[in-house]
Amino acid sequence: MAQHGGFPLASGQMLDELDIAYTTNGTLNENCSNAILICHALTGDQHVASPHPTTGKPGWWDRLVGPGRPIDTNLYFVICANVLGGCAGTTGPQSTNPKTGRAYRLDFPVITIADMVHVQKLLIEHLGISKLLAVVGGSMGGMQVLQWASSYPEYMVAAVTIASAPNHSAQNIAFHELGRQAIMADPQWKAGQYDAQPTKGLAVARMAAHITYLSEQALTRKFGRRLQAREELTYGFDADFQVESYLRHQGMSFVDRFDANSYLYITRAMDYFDLSAEHNQSLASAFMKGTNRHLIISFDSDWLFTTAEAKKLVHALSAAGQEVSFLEISSDKGHDAFLLEEPELDAALSGFLQSTLGMVTA
Amino acid sequence: MAQHGGFPLASGQMLDELDIAYTTNGTLNENCSNAILICHALTGDQHVASPHPTTGKPGWWDRLVGPGRPIDTNLYFVICANVLGGCAGTTGPQSTNPKTGRAYRLDFPVITIADMVHVQKLLIEHLGISKLLAVVGGSMGGMQVLQWASSYPEYMVAAVTIASAPNHSAQNIAFHELGRQAIMADPQWKAGQYDAQPTKGLAVARMAAHITYLSEQALTRKFGRRLQAREELTYGFDADFQVESYLRHQGMSFVDRFDANSYLYITRAMDYFDLSAEHNQSLASAFMKGTNRHLIISFDSDWLFTTAEAKKLVHALSAAGQEVSFLEISSDKGHDAFLLEEPELDAALSGFLQSTLGMVTA
Repeated sequence: MAQHGGFPLASGQMLDELDIAYTTNGTLNENCSNAILICHALTGDQHVASPHPTTGKPGWWDRLVGPGRPIDTNLYFVICANVLGGCAGTTGPQSTNPKTGRAYRLDFPVITIADMVHVQKLLIEHLGISKLLAVVGGSMGGMQVLQWASSYPEYMVAAVTIASAPNHSAQNIAFHELGRQAIMADPQWKAGQYDAQPTKGLAVARMAAHITYLSEQALTRKFGRRLQAREELTYGFDADFQVESYLRHQGMSFVDRFDANSYLYITRAMDYFDLSAEHNQSLASAFMKGTNRHLIISFDSDWLFTTAEAKKLVHALSAAGQEVSFLEISSDKGHDAFLLEEPELDAALSGFLQSTLGMVTA
Repeated sequence: MAQHGGFPLASGQMLDELDIAYTTNGTLNENCSNAILICHALTGDQHVASPHPTTGKPGWWDRLVGPGRPIDTNLYFVICANVLGGCAGTTGPQSTNPKTGRAYRLDFPVITIADMVHVQKLLIEHLGISKLLAVVGGSMGGMQVLQWASSYPEYMVAAVTIASAPNHSAQNIAFHELGRQAIMADPQWKAGQYDAQPTKGLAVARMAAHITYLSEQALTRKFGRRLQAREELTYGFDADFQVESYLRHQGMSFVDRFDANSYLYITRAMDYFDLSAEHNQSLASAFMKGTNRHLIISFDSDWLFTTAEAKKLVHALSAAGQEVSFLEISSDKGHDAFLLEEPELDAALSGFLQSTLGMVTA
């Protein structure tokens, strides 16, 4: 959808035009009560259950979203939109600035998680939905879920926050800053005015992020100190260890599908996210406006968004009088677990959403 | 000291000439029984207790080494040498290749922790010492201590291994590879043939490493989400958060004192380090040649070289019939704790070394 007439941002700046790229799966029922909004993570997009147009790979949550799957498209109408600042169709730094007729690049205003969620609310209204059955997301998607619950609780029944936190920690900001500096250090970045991507810097940024998505256990299980096929140390700087070539591959394949400037803007939005700062340092105060059913899920080996952060959230939501279920899933997969095969995640999501649907249609 | 006539390396290659830059503190006693060798970490040097010639800062272990300090130079003769491959005087990629008359750069052979220790053994012999009272080191310095205990146990009485491990984990290799890729991505690196340092890439590598040296708790305590002096979000890409400017400073100040190619070679040596691989996957077998007194120290918030790794070491040393003391120090400072104010570390070092001296002189 396209919105004209000015979209105000948290920074005080204004976007003159706004495009929102989204997908839907399933059918909206007559009283519009079965809609689920899925919010994607840092490098995700709207292709939650359909093949990615560039890579041809299945949707990033194809495993969870579809007929008979935990987010069952026979039951629910599933909406997923590319975030503001993204590079898959929604307005972002690659979009044309109507004032100049050229791409925004670094003239694009810095955006926040609240701005992303505001855009999603316009989309929901455009689709004629006054109340979502649920908003669901992992990692940065979970930040959006929490922002929804804080800003627009009356527009939703339930909220599912997976592997996320009510603010970005100092360590997480540090890793993002590292990635941004790697991009900006690449002379191909040209202060954001590149024609060809700063591929080397962006690949290094992705490598850094990727290490944080896996647990030490997962890295040890997957690679340990195993060598490449030649099975001997080369005494050189080629990738001797499997973990090296894996990381190089992660870095190089990423640059084909993601824009470096979008990476700067979206990581910045995550760093800025801090619900309690907006509410006089009281996280509970962020959730006082309405009443929702919450499901909070963490993974015990996730060191990027820890169970300790999830528990802070549970305490605050409880203090705000919200209905909260909390589940820590035991997995050695680290932060990435929310995108991978985790039967407990499937069961919890499926059960929580069905019981919410039952309440609404009862 | 300079050694001529060829120095054989683990890779099978040979160095035609070898310079070893070192410092000593204290006085060697008559029967040469009070010498302690200190092994430095990745970016350390021989200036353990004297000001750094470039930065003017106190020696990196000045706090621990000196008259009346835990490594008491009134009692001990303390030796510290720049490692092979380093950039503070010992032969490394910046040194002149006698075959060509030009700097080695990437023609420098890949070296190992065992090669570093072999160089140190030549130095000890040159100094007329047949048995060290102790070899002491933290992090990569600890790897050298373990290599000493494995290769030359008869040349030492005691070994102190701090915040280290008998091999480099997959996660640690991943972080090193990230740093190397950041250096190599910098066009100023010029495949190692730079005249001016690839400062941006090296700074990014240092930033990545620095995050791993601190614990999440330390980052939260030191910086949390606190903003720079202007106290407001700027909605830009300047350093808004204190942790960002701290990291940028760490990156930028590093490039003045450390050579990018040395960083490649020394990280590679750490990645290659695996004592059990050299002994048919039996770590205990690595310590069968002689008998030493061992002190192993870990810090509970160190996620780079964990207590779990230290305990593996303790088990292997015990199985090999070595005398082992093990101490896990509670600290929120992460890996960096071994360089910082830690009274328990001071007390343990002081007591262990004095009791060793007492045994030797009894």
